[in-house]
Amino acid sequence: MRDVAIIGAGLCKFGERWNSGLKELMAEAGIMALEDAHISSHDVEMLYGGTMASGRFSGQEHVAALMADQLGFKNIPAVRIENACASGGSALRQGYISVASGIHDIVVVGGVEKMTDVTSSEATTALGGAGDQEWELFQGITFPGLYALMARRHMHDYGTTEEMLAAVAVKNHENATKNRFAQFRKSITIDEVLRSKKVADPLKLLDCSPISDGAAAVVLAPLDIAKKYNDTPIKVMASTQATDTLRLAERDSLTEVKATRIAAQKAYEHAKVSAKDIDVVEVHDCFTIAEIMAMEDLGFYPKGKAGKAVLEGETALNSKISVNTSGGLKGCGHPVGATGVKQAVEVVWQLRGDAKERQVDGAEVGMTHNVGGSGSTAVVHIYKRAD
Amino acid sequence: MRDVAIIGAGLCKFGERWNSGLKELMAEAGIMALEDAHISSHDVEMLYGGTMASGRFSGQEHVAALMADQLGFKNIPAVRIENACASGGSALRQGYISVASGIHDIVVVGGVEKMTDVTSSEATTALGGAGDQEWELFQGITFPGLYALMARRHMHDYGTTEEMLAAVAVKNHENATKNRFAQFRKSITIDEVLRSKKVADPLKLLDCSPISDGAAAVVLAPLDIAKKYNDTPIKVMASTQATDTLRLAERDSLTEVKATRIAAQKAYEHAKVSAKDIDVVEVHDCFTIAEIMAMEDLGFYPKGKAGKAVLEGETALNSKISVNTSGGLKGCGHPVGATGVKQAVEVVWQLRGDAKERQVDGAEVGMTHNVGGSGSTAVVHIYKRAD
Repeated sequence: MRDVAIIGAGLCKFGERWNSGLKELMAEAGIMALEDAHISSHDVEMLYGGTMASGRFSGQEHVAALMADQLGFKNIPAVRIENACASGGSALRQGYISVASGIHDIVVVGGVEKMTDVTSSEATTALGGAGDQEWELFQGITFPGLYALMARRHMHDYGTTEEMLAAVAVKNHENATKNRFAQFRKSITIDEVLRSKKVADPLKLLDCSPISDGAAAVVLAPLDIAKKYNDTPIKVMASTQATDTLRLAERDSLTEVKATRIAAQKAYEHAKVSAKDIDVVEVHDCFTIAEIMAMEDLGFYPKGKAGKAVLEGETALNSKISVNTSGGLKGCGHPVGATGVKQAVEVVWQLRGDAKERQVDGAEVGMTHNVGGSGSTAVVHIYKRAD
Repeated sequence: MRDVAIIGAGLCKFGERWNSGLKELMAEAGIMALEDAHISSHDVEMLYGGTMASGRFSGQEHVAALMADQLGFKNIPAVRIENACASGGSALRQGYISVASGIHDIVVVGGVEKMTDVTSSEATTALGGAGDQEWELFQGITFPGLYALMARRHMHDYGTTEEMLAAVAVKNHENATKNRFAQFRKSITIDEVLRSKKVADPLKLLDCSPISDGAAAVVLAPLDIAKKYNDTPIKVMASTQATDTLRLAERDSLTEVKATRIAAQKAYEHAKVSAKDIDVVEVHDCFTIAEIMAMEDLGFYPKGKAGKAVLEGETALNSKISVNTSGGLKGCGHPVGATGVKQAVEVVWQLRGDAKERQVDGAEVGMTHNVGGSGSTAVVHIYKRAD
């Protein structure tokens, strides 16, 4: 297998993009990525497109073929990847495998979701497709409810507090103020989070990531030819994925996402690094509790210790470890299919030193962590500047 | 890259499976494939699951994780592939790449669709997601309409007749009578096809493949260890895919599926065979005109000549070339995500000599051809018995 690098990265502004459909969002991010890689649409040999529920959000399936069409990738193979909110990260891993295999050289990985053309009730139902329809959603629980169960148990077992959860949202909103692509460029306070409307106790509105429109794209190439296209290619050191039961009730634990732990463990082995080597990480904070659990399951903190660390500022920009510098799903927005690819874009910019006012000083090694459902799918990537 | 073989194949009965959901259908096909490969669920390293519109048909996304869960594939990576009606074939190609790359050894590729839990109007709308929502479906055209446009043009340009179209349905129903997994085990006559209700002139009800429930699965392994698992592994000699515009109106031609032609051309090159070497082929006959165009685009007949050949019996079982021995989408049924994988299962059985009363004598080389949308995606595989 060949080494793989990211040679281009692109994003569109996340948010409520009333004037843009799937095609326009994808075109913005895709063209930016192609320009960044200094290639034209004719150079692209394969496209992987991550999107979760375009059928229910936009009536549109077959989204990768649509992307290829829209971006002028004539007649190349194009494949849509769907793994709930981990669709983007899963698409990245498939792109990685196809370049590593030697079957394709220049591969584009895109992620997109257009979520604001339906009512919020319809969006909640569509997102519910990430869980087990027959055993979870039909019984009345939604995703905030599933994560609330995990939060409540984490609070019970480890003394995690609502202030600690709120501190995740405050930090991520703060980072988002420094990101021109973010949906919410607005600081919030712990008090505002605590006083926001309850969604599923103990999770409140400001503990939840939003409904968003957005797209992201990266261009992959074999590492040995990457410098032909870009002076600062970013090497993908590991690309791993794991699953757990679809139903939360069947997991071994409510306070650990086992799929994350397994994927992270394999990623560290492949990349020959450990958690302490990671300078910058984008984790899947669909709800504030998810970031706290991720920090533990990825090995940055022992179980039960991450909440306090966030509250004490250890995960803020340029502190002990910089977590969700993009603003995360909470601050930057969560167009579900785009999220996993957006995480990679942020880490690419950080490792290149291009992250401007949110730049992590001396960032050398980065990680992304993308989750589907209540933890049924987890995808982990580790990256390093190639020079 | 490593050579790849199919070491196990499984199917469930296609049809209106009122008592089975996504999980039950997938379990039937998956367990049959595992048993055929003489492996247990613990041996499987990765799962690719093809399904088109499970979100709209069943409210369920994240289907690969669900399949992995249901089949007891604990904690392995699982990825759903969606490429409209080519989801199954596209999943097979991704499975092929992952084994060829060396990243995984034992990979299961499943395909499933549960289409009968919605009204036929809802099903038609969901299937419309394979085309361009904004430019085709919102304007009122459905898939029978798109294929009717192609049929009408083919008739105009080449003198193809309604009898020739009907002959495709008659042949495929005849083959389906010999297949215990088929939805329609019932012979029909040309006259019955011609007298059936018009759906989109010139296509009548019996020119159209049905709404079906069903699942299929194959197990892949590196060729060099395949005989450890199965005495008659089937080598995948080529796995290719191409796209064309999503919108029919933007194609160079209405009578050629360019994606098919490109994918086939590459497949013949990779496999170092030509159309005349193929003994048995499963083509994508979502509508009767699609089989005629496929026979031409795959290189079996010059453009405009396939219709007459079908009418004269050249594509019947054990004639010049045996086409759609399973009964095809028309006779065997078309659970869209399952179809591309079912095609592979049929060819595996044919090349092993296990196809019983529909066995093609001396079948050595086989092909499958799976299409998404009105020809926006085409996937072609070529196979040969490994010994």
